[in-house]
Amino acid sequence: MKKLINDPAQVVTDYLRGLSLAHSDLVAISTDPPFVTRADKDSGRAAQVAVVSGGGSGHEPLHCGLVGPGMLHGAVPGPVFTSPPAPQIHAAAKAADEGRGVVMIVKNYTGDVLNFETAAELLDMEDVAVESVLVADDVAVEDSTYTAGRRGVAGTLVVEKVAGAAAARGDDLAVVAEIARKAAGAVRSMGVALESGISPTTGQHTFDLDAGQIEIGIGIHGEPGREHQPHTQAKEIIEGLIDAIARDGGCEDGSDVLLFVNGMGSTTDAELHICYGAAHDALAARGVNVVRSLVGSYVTSLDMAGVSVTVCPMDDELLAAWDAPCATPAFTRVTP
Amino acid sequence: MKKLINDPAQVVTDYLRGLSLAHSDLVAISTDPPFVTRADKDSGRAAQVAVVSGGGSGHEPLHCGLVGPGMLHGAVPGPVFTSPPAPQIHAAAKAADEGRGVVMIVKNYTGDVLNFETAAELLDMEDVAVESVLVADDVAVEDSTYTAGRRGVAGTLVVEKVAGAAAARGDDLAVVAEIARKAAGAVRSMGVALESGISPTTGQHTFDLDAGQIEIGIGIHGEPGREHQPHTQAKEIIEGLIDAIARDGGCEDGSDVLLFVNGMGSTTDAELHICYGAAHDALAARGVNVVRSLVGSYVTSLDMAGVSVTVCPMDDELLAAWDAPCATPAFTRVTP
Repeated sequence: MKKLINDPAQVVTDYLRGLSLAHSDLVAISTDPPFVTRADKDSGRAAQVAVVSGGGSGHEPLHCGLVGPGMLHGAVPGPVFTSPPAPQIHAAAKAADEGRGVVMIVKNYTGDVLNFETAAELLDMEDVAVESVLVADDVAVEDSTYTAGRRGVAGTLVVEKVAGAAAARGDDLAVVAEIARKAAGAVRSMGVALESGISPTTGQHTFDLDAGQIEIGIGIHGEPGREHQPHTQAKEIIEGLIDAIARDGGCEDGSDVLLFVNGMGSTTDAELHICYGAAHDALAARGVNVVRSLVGSYVTSLDMAGVSVTVCPMDDELLAAWDAPCATPAFTRVTP
Repeated sequence: MKKLINDPAQVVTDYLRGLSLAHSDLVAISTDPPFVTRADKDSGRAAQVAVVSGGGSGHEPLHCGLVGPGMLHGAVPGPVFTSPPAPQIHAAAKAADEGRGVVMIVKNYTGDVLNFETAAELLDMEDVAVESVLVADDVAVEDSTYTAGRRGVAGTLVVEKVAGAAAARGDDLAVVAEIARKAAGAVRSMGVALESGISPTTGQHTFDLDAGQIEIGIGIHGEPGREHQPHTQAKEIIEGLIDAIARDGGCEDGSDVLLFVNGMGSTTDAELHICYGAAHDALAARGVNVVRSLVGSYVTSLDMAGVSVTVCPMDDELLAAWDAPCATPAFTRVTP
C-alpha cells in the first residue's frame, strides 16, 4: 500500500521533525528518545504544572500536535499502536516539568497504564510530584483487545484541553488533576468504522470489514466493537451512537453539553459536518443543549474511514476551561 | 462505496446545515440557493469590503469552512466538482455585500470563470461594485480537463487569507483586490495523488491509478497531471514537486516564503508533516527561507490520498496580512 513516508522505521521521528520545523514557535522535540515539549518553556513566563500525555502513534494529531500554550506541555509518541516504554515517558516528563509537578493523562490501555505508572514511580524517586488521570470514555465495550475496562478514545482531547487551561492559569497540581478527572469522569464517546486504516509500518489493513458492512463501537486501533451491521444513512448510524452514549447516562434532559464529532482519518470534512448535524438532532430530541462544538479529525486511527461522537456534560468550570485560549499545531482556540 | 451521508442528492445542504449548527458563532447559511455568509454581518461592526469565493463542492473545508472574521464574507458551494450557477453566486454576493463592494476570488476553471463573470455583471447592473481575482497557481499543466490556462488549487487559501485580512482592517475595494492579485500572482502549487477519491454522489472512484503508481501534477478533481511514476519515498516525491515549482520561478535563492503542505483528503497528519519536512529540506537546499508554515487538509479532493505543496514568496505586506488574526470553522490564526 502507498504511503507518503520515507523509511517505515522512521515514521515517528520523521513526523516529529516535520512537526518541529512547521511549528517551531510552539513545540520543541527530542528524537532520542522521541518526545515533544513546549517551545516557550524557558521563555521567562511563570512556571506551570506540566500536563503530559502520550501513547502509541497512529492517532495524530493526538498527542504531539496538541502541545502548546493552553494545552499540553509534553507528549510521548510510542511506535504505531504501541505504548512508549517507561524510560521514554520518564524522559519526556522530566523535560516538560517546570518544578510544579506533572499531570499525566493516560488513555486506558494496559501497556500505557503500566508504562506511565512505572514512569511516575521513577519521577517520584526524583521528587517530581505526579498525578495520573485515566481516560476511559469509550462506552462501546467493557474490556477489549488491549484494555481491561473501557478504552480511552477521543474524549482524551477534552481532558487535555481543560487540564491545559487550568495549568495555564497557574493552578496547582491537585487542582489541575481534579479538573482533568472531572472531565474524564463526564466525557463519553463511541465510534463507527466504514473501512480499516492501513499501517505505515506493515503496509497492511489493520482489520477486515465486508463490503456493505460497518463496525459499530470500533476502537481507535480497529479493536472489535459491539457489532457489524449493514451500512445505512449517517443519521441512523449517528442516532445509534448517541443512543449508546445516552443509555450510559451522558445525555440528561436539559443538560448542557460539548458535542465533538471526530474523524478517524479519511472521513471528509463534509461528512463530519453531516454527522455533526445528525448528532445535534439526536441530542435535541433528548432535550440536550449543545453549548459547545468541535468538528475535525483529531483522534485518528491511521487513515481509517469512520467517525466517533463525544458528548461531555459541561458546568461553568468546564466551560471556562474549554473556552480558554490555546495555540497548538492542530488546535487553536481564541477567546469567544 | 460507503460514505457517512444521508441522501446523496442532499450532501451539500446537509453539510451546510451541520456547518451552521457547529459554528453558529461564525457562519450563517442559506439553503435555497445554498451559500454561507458571516454570522457577524449585522453585529454593528464597521462595514467591510466583502470577500466572496466558491466553486464546486468536494474540496471542503474550502470555501465554506473559511468564512469568518478575518477571512471570507461569503462562500458559494456548487454541486460536487461542478460550478455553482451565476444566480446562486449573485445571491451569495448580494447577501455578503456590506455596501463597500465585493472581491470575488475565482479558481481558474472554465465553469467558475463564466458563472462568476455573469454574476459580476448582474451585480454591476445593481450598482454593486465588483473586482474579480483569478487564482491559477497549479504549475503542473497549462490546460486541463476543465481549464484553459492553469488550474486554481491550494494557493486559493493564501489569496483568501490575505484578501480577508485587508478587508478586516477596513481597506477599500481596490486595495483588497490588489493584495489578492499580488498573492495570486506570487503563489505556486503542485500536487501528487496516491489513490483516487470516491464521489459521494456517484459512489465511484473519480479516476484509476495502478497499484504502485502515483500521479504527479494531479488536479483537485483528479484531472491528469504530468505523468504516472512508480511510488517512491516521500522525500523524492516532494523534491519533484518543489523542483517543478522552482523551475517556474517560485524559489529564488535568499527569498522568504510561506510553505503550505496540503492534504487531499485521506492523507494522515503524520504523513503531511513528513512531507513538510521534505519540502522544507528541498527549499533550504535552494537557499529559500521558510518564514511561515501551514500543514493540514484544507483544499481537498473528496477523500483522495495525496498532497500538494504550495510556495508563496512573502514580502512585508503579505506577511502582515497572513499574520493577521482570523477565526473560521476550519482555520483559526492568533496573532503570533
